[in-house]
Amino acid sequence: MEKKNIFYAQSGGVTSVINASACGVIETARAHRSRIGKVLAGQNGIIGALREELIDTSKETTKTIAALRHTPSGAFGSCRYKLKSLEENRAEYERLIAVFKAHNIGYFLYNGGGDSADTCLKVSRLSEKMGYPIQAIHIPKTVDNDLPITDNCPGFGSVAKYVAVSTKEASLDVASMCATSTKVFILEVMGRHAGWIAAAGGLAAQQVGDPPHIILFPEIAFDRQKFLKKVEQTVKKEGYCVIVASEGAQYADGTFIADAGTTDAFGHKQLGGVAPTLADLVKTELGYKYHWALADYLQRAARHIASATDVEQAYAVGKAAVEYALAGKNAVMVSIERKKTKKYGWKLGEAPLEKVANREKKMPRRFITRDGFGITQLARDYLAPLIAGEDYPPYEAGVPCYARLKNQLVPRKLKTGFEV
Amino acid sequence: MEKKNIFYAQSGGVTSVINASACGVIETARAHRSRIGKVLAGQNGIIGALREELIDTSKETTKTIAALRHTPSGAFGSCRYKLKSLEENRAEYERLIAVFKAHNIGYFLYNGGGDSADTCLKVSRLSEKMGYPIQAIHIPKTVDNDLPITDNCPGFGSVAKYVAVSTKEASLDVASMCATSTKVFILEVMGRHAGWIAAAGGLAAQQVGDPPHIILFPEIAFDRQKFLKKVEQTVKKEGYCVIVASEGAQYADGTFIADAGTTDAFGHKQLGGVAPTLADLVKTELGYKYHWALADYLQRAARHIASATDVEQAYAVGKAAVEYALAGKNAVMVSIERKKTKKYGWKLGEAPLEKVANREKKMPRRFITRDGFGITQLARDYLAPLIAGEDYPPYEAGVPCYARLKNQLVPRKLKTGFEV
Repeated sequence: MEKKNIFYAQSGGVTSVINASACGVIETARAHRSRIGKVLAGQNGIIGALREELIDTSKETTKTIAALRHTPSGAFGSCRYKLKSLEENRAEYERLIAVFKAHNIGYFLYNGGGDSADTCLKVSRLSEKMGYPIQAIHIPKTVDNDLPITDNCPGFGSVAKYVAVSTKEASLDVASMCATSTKVFILEVMGRHAGWIAAAGGLAAQQVGDPPHIILFPEIAFDRQKFLKKVEQTVKKEGYCVIVASEGAQYADGTFIADAGTTDAFGHKQLGGVAPTLADLVKTELGYKYHWALADYLQRAARHIASATDVEQAYAVGKAAVEYALAGKNAVMVSIERKKTKKYGWKLGEAPLEKVANREKKMPRRFITRDGFGITQLARDYLAPLIAGEDYPPYEAGVPCYARLKNQLVPRKLKTGFEV
Repeated sequence: MEKKNIFYAQSGGVTSVINASACGVIETARAHRSRIGKVLAGQNGIIGALREELIDTSKETTKTIAALRHTPSGAFGSCRYKLKSLEENRAEYERLIAVFKAHNIGYFLYNGGGDSADTCLKVSRLSEKMGYPIQAIHIPKTVDNDLPITDNCPGFGSVAKYVAVSTKEASLDVASMCATSTKVFILEVMGRHAGWIAAAGGLAAQQVGDPPHIILFPEIAFDRQKFLKKVEQTVKKEGYCVIVASEGAQYADGTFIADAGTTDAFGHKQLGGVAPTLADLVKTELGYKYHWALADYLQRAARHIASATDVEQAYAVGKAAVEYALAGKNAVMVSIERKKTKKYGWKLGEAPLEKVANREKKMPRRFITRDGFGITQLARDYLAPLIAGEDYPPYEAGVPCYARLKNQLVPRKLKTGFEV
């Protein structure tokens, strides 16, 4: 059998450990040189395949590839680009397959969230119909932790750790200042439709009464009066109130608390502004002095405080994707399965892509306290192992040493370009 | 000689290492039991002295006090409360001295910025006039790094490290996404009148062309057109643009780019909102998609990524304050002096408080590049050693273990209360 190349691409919002998955893919492929050719990476994700801009990862040294394990964000570039449906733009899929064929690509390893699982499935199906079957393996990645079937998603554990640590630290700050100054602190975190990231803020609390005092989840309809009452009660009792708010927190009718009004390429509304909106509400209605923070990209890029569990799993799913490909698997996602032991343990599994694509896993109601403002012990049991362990990057002169890649493209083989 | 007690208080905005100074004070005082009584800490800073709410630190275990070294924020509570001038409110100073006398306090160790240096000086002078002389030693602390004479201020190195690391990480994120999504990222950082913290963002760049591409300092008048031109040029050349903006960035006439409009107890305007204002400008004028982050308290509470140099210096100035007190010094600030060696080295010195109080040290113009958007090699040489080294706190279950104090008050001795 002729050795096929791997095409690997990063999709959607990046994470602090998606490169650890890339590291797992490339190191594992290199360990199977007799059966696998090169790993070609899409420059800026799937767009790189459409434009025939393929990065030759064989040009990178062993040391550089190893450094990907501790380098945040997408080393080959990612993109927010959702392929249209087959009916709407069959040409795009045909182009992908033409590029794959021209570069002797037999394996499509797509590292992303729900949208990329969908693309992966379509490529697998169409390539077979077109007579150039490609094994498509989906490598899960999303800080949102909202992919179905898998127990958790690589990328989430590290953002969860960042949010738990930051909430704990900022809470100590507010507690220090509240006698004469700030009484209410609001941290706005990511999580468009699912409250997993906000929930992680709850891990900052280790004893009853510890902050955060209020968590706002997209899953729980926002009730202005109930919220204000809880803030007031907390300030009266504790002297201050710490709030972790999901960017997706919304009213019962689905209106986001704050909506920036713009829309991204996937048709998702671009959010931001829950924290200042809540701060203004608190100031106007209760008169408390506030501070608020918007972590934005800092949270998902924070490799300096990555979860060791997350890094290990991110690497493992990348490694497994190559092994699954070699084992002949197709149209599957590598999944993480939690062992039914008392002490946390995990192993890898697989999930058919048709069961993964376009489904979102929200926080179960049993993970949220009855009043809707906190997490239950069940949630803590689920979340805590995912942020366990520290995996510090190396430092030089006070800042982390992150990998710098050459990102050299392979020569084009197709005569035609493709407009993206 | 009768053993006198120490009064120690934390003042103003807290930092991730102010408790390391407290640790230095308490451990050193405990090491001199034959000459020093107890360390009594002000509950919520100087307010604790006025209200006669004094924390008995002798109730805390050796282990708890040691843990202060790695615990961020103000363990005894801080406050934003500036004593009025002697003419305006002599009663406040007299009350302070009455409380000190009642509790056999001979040493006033005040841990804060410029405003607290001023208070320290006044207490020293007035106590002498009132016939109960108190040795007042100022322990420097401010993330703003704007105290005069001392080479740098404890608290700054760690926020500088946080900003450098976060800028580097977020820049990798934007670089990954810029092909199809975010082109401009803005990180808003603290620094009311001095650009030291924003300057530290420049340490994220290790090679020419590395982000951040633009730093906005309060010291350089903001020029809208020049800024927009630089953003556009950078996006065209690099594909994206990363901006670190000081909250104090302002127009030539002194108007802050964004002004929240409220004022704190020291009469300083409460800022916040530079990043969204700039983002809106970029979107409106250039049409680029943006993201922005507001680190707020996260930056100054981020003990998880503290600078080892900063922690060491914060501890040392606390320790020295006790030693200076024992040596009979009065009305001085412990200062940090940089050695004139090629390799960074430092030692402690002292500065008379009349030369410290109410002066702000801004960034020298030679630390800022000619175009006003970056830092020079001189600035890098000054800043880099201050963020050097990592000093990680211990972790348990994925989150840092920070000290929890009993904060038990000593019984009141005065018959009268005092309204603050």
